[in-house]
Amino acid sequence: MPDKTDHAFPGPLKQGVYEAIYRRRDIRRFLPDPIPEETLLRILNAGHQAGSVGLMQPWNFVVIQDRSIKAKIKSVFLECNREAAKVYTGERQAMYDGLKLEGIEEAPTNLCVTCDPIRKGPSVLGARTMPEMAVYSTVCAIQNLWLAARAEGIGMGWVSILDPKEVKAALSIPDPIILVAYLCLGYVESFPEIPVLEKIGWEKRFPLEKVLYWNHWGGSEGR
Amino acid sequence: MPDKTDHAFPGPLKQGVYEAIYRRRDIRRFLPDPIPEETLLRILNAGHQAGSVGLMQPWNFVVIQDRSIKAKIKSVFLECNREAAKVYTGERQAMYDGLKLEGIEEAPTNLCVTCDPIRKGPSVLGARTMPEMAVYSTVCAIQNLWLAARAEGIGMGWVSILDPKEVKAALSIPDPIILVAYLCLGYVESFPEIPVLEKIGWEKRFPLEKVLYWNHWGGSEGR
Repeated sequence: MPDKTDHAFPGPLKQGVYEAIYRRRDIRRFLPDPIPEETLLRILNAGHQAGSVGLMQPWNFVVIQDRSIKAKIKSVFLECNREAAKVYTGERQAMYDGLKLEGIEEAPTNLCVTCDPIRKGPSVLGARTMPEMAVYSTVCAIQNLWLAARAEGIGMGWVSILDPKEVKAALSIPDPIILVAYLCLGYVESFPEIPVLEKIGWEKRFPLEKVLYWNHWGGSEGR
Repeated sequence: MPDKTDHAFPGPLKQGVYEAIYRRRDIRRFLPDPIPEETLLRILNAGHQAGSVGLMQPWNFVVIQDRSIKAKIKSVFLECNREAAKVYTGERQAMYDGLKLEGIEEAPTNLCVTCDPIRKGPSVLGARTMPEMAVYSTVCAIQNLWLAARAEGIGMGWVSILDPKEVKAALSIPDPIILVAYLCLGYVESFPEIPVLEKIGWEKRFPLEKVLYWNHWGGSEGR
């Protein structure tokens, strides 16, 4: 019987995992320096190592470095953001208008991550009752990308103010492929200590206890 | 102007991130030893540190350690798995029947992760064109849990052969809360070197190159 702590990482390796998790930020401001291809491939391979339902590995990675394609995506963003901004009024509107919500053209590398829900045919082990597992596996890969990038000193930003249909058209992505994320990657001058939306007072982070239940919804006993 | 490598983690910390990503496994075999509460809270806090669209932090964590609740969930699994198994015939069926697909009752700790899509009201910054961002943020939190657990030497398994409605009922989870994942956590005798589904020949892992495109779907140029 092995000691149950046998498999824990030694101190500095464990620290690395927590630092990546705590120091990851959603980045919109990038330096122009290109990402060396070997670094980019290390990050992409980290994504590709994610677990997936039935080992279906449903993701694709489309790396975009062509300026004219970035410009197309930027114009999709601008159109969507004009609509999104209309929701706000007064102080909130001024705050929203002051936010930088993407870094599509500044980031040396853009990355579109997609999910092919039928890559392994219609029935996938573990996905019968929860077909959404294919997309969830793809999001697990995206979090791997985010943390590996942080360890490499590279910032990543997830741009969600985009019409997925228009982005798919711009990148010639066929149906039934699902666009899961449009990401920007690049070196940064700094990783903000506090998330920008928290710093400007848009939203607050709250302590874990507020969202933690025991044994059933709302439960505080049985720990 | 800072050196663009300024923000990269030093060697052992970076190594920790990659080791967690490469050595994480979907675990179904657990030792009975309980997870100390401070360790469990470190892992849960790692989940809670995930980024979220509009900083909405839409997740809840329901920790289940009560045996009678685990038994209820196990019976939901057994019923769903009986149906799932019917898809297979011949050799594939024998293989499927031999698979251990959950560790609900053996794992000292079960964890249900949910998403409240309207926690911050109907309109969330960044989610207008992609309302699925709330659930995706929750999955990012789950991958954080998985990697932090691995660093702690704790195995985690994602059980998806469950009817979300029945699990929600068993845990008194109200609408419109979305059940995203039912997870099992505990110490392990070993983390398999190779994913089980690969080892038994159910599916193969393929190299990154097979799912990597440049500048547009199918593109191999422009790198």
